[in-house]
Amino acid sequence: MTTTSQPAVVLLSGGLDSAVTCALATEQGFRVHALTVDYGQRHDVEIAAARRVALAMRVARHVTQRIDLRAFGGSALTADLPVPAYRPAEANPAPGVPMTYVPARNTILLSFALAFAEVTGASDIFIGVNAVDYSGYPDCRPAFIEQFERLARVATRAGVEGRVLCIRAPLMHLNKAQIVLEGVRLGVDLGVTHSCYDPDEQGRACARCDSCHYRREGFRQAGIADPTVYRS
Amino acid sequence: MTTTSQPAVVLLSGGLDSAVTCALATEQGFRVHALTVDYGQRHDVEIAAARRVALAMRVARHVTQRIDLRAFGGSALTADLPVPAYRPAEANPAPGVPMTYVPARNTILLSFALAFAEVTGASDIFIGVNAVDYSGYPDCRPAFIEQFERLARVATRAGVEGRVLCIRAPLMHLNKAQIVLEGVRLGVDLGVTHSCYDPDEQGRACARCDSCHYRREGFRQAGIADPTVYRS
Repeated sequence: MTTTSQPAVVLLSGGLDSAVTCALATEQGFRVHALTVDYGQRHDVEIAAARRVALAMRVARHVTQRIDLRAFGGSALTADLPVPAYRPAEANPAPGVPMTYVPARNTILLSFALAFAEVTGASDIFIGVNAVDYSGYPDCRPAFIEQFERLARVATRAGVEGRVLCIRAPLMHLNKAQIVLEGVRLGVDLGVTHSCYDPDEQGRACARCDSCHYRREGFRQAGIADPTVYRS
Repeated sequence: MTTTSQPAVVLLSGGLDSAVTCALATEQGFRVHALTVDYGQRHDVEIAAARRVALAMRVARHVTQRIDLRAFGGSALTADLPVPAYRPAEANPAPGVPMTYVPARNTILLSFALAFAEVTGASDIFIGVNAVDYSGYPDCRPAFIEQFERLARVATRAGVEGRVLCIRAPLMHLNKAQIVLEGVRLGVDLGVTHSCYDPDEQGRACARCDSCHYRREGFRQAGIADPTVYRS
């Protein structure tokens, strides 16, 4: 563990994974500049959760960037399409990339994080992607993170001036139970995080979608009580 | 020259270069989905120019995405800093990356173009960057474009499903005079395009900034009358 007062940009969605990622960056001594991108997702409850997490973590700064991916459409999270229920891989006739994939989402999120890093002088960008208990999105894989890091180094003033930018994905190889346990170890108030793709108007989780499935299973396997309010 | 009715995404800023790029994509038979990103630049006149170019080129669709890079600051184009006058390289004590560089701008623009390409089924993304008569931005160089293309192929559903995404920068190795001549050859109404970093309230160009300098020189060297309205 290093202790520095270096700035780092942390992408903060309000979900479990990004909250634990933010706590890890803080534990490593970084001065956290949190960035939330509101991309027109159905659930504003996610943005509210990001705000609560940022407050609870006492980040140095929290910026919300609003964009409109609904202008393009093409995902159950941003268009008027139903959110599918979780299906185990063996029961899924067409595995591939699921409907809940938001086109180029993590590329866009990391691009904004890169701009923020340029301005704050941060060399480190944290993102809570995970390639174990996840939905099979192409932009959650190690190959994507490595490639973005290479891009970041040629794309920026920092790169030209010799500052080495790093994209850190500390949860990449953890399963959801391990992420829950990391959150508990770090004292993250997991109750303020939000994971569901399809919450109701009161913000209650659906208990049906991929994201609810992985979250529930993670808590169960970790042996930790799940503080999530489910509607069923 | 190929003739297809394949969709392509074209980044359209309203400037000379992106207008010529758009005309090249059209000439190659692509059905153009134009994308303008309004990143809070000082000059709304640029957005108005993009609209005029899109209309004149009869693109299939024109989407404007509004983002707020001013939330991050750090560039003369998005913060309250003066736009510097052009200085030839030999008179410039600190060449490096100029103040008008907008942090991670082209990474952000291409990320949005990538999302749009995913949704429209386009395999080709056109961007009017140029590494000859330009201001020395890191994200205008061939190495940046090549690296983004590699990223696009691992970042997306298209990549996973075997569709090969290409980032096309057809002006990369042309000088400004050659770009002007391409515009004339393709019948682009160059008078509707806007290049200046620091226009006045009537939209008149400053004739001082890097962008005005390269534009003026381009027209002069091409032997084409410059339709730009300068305030001096």
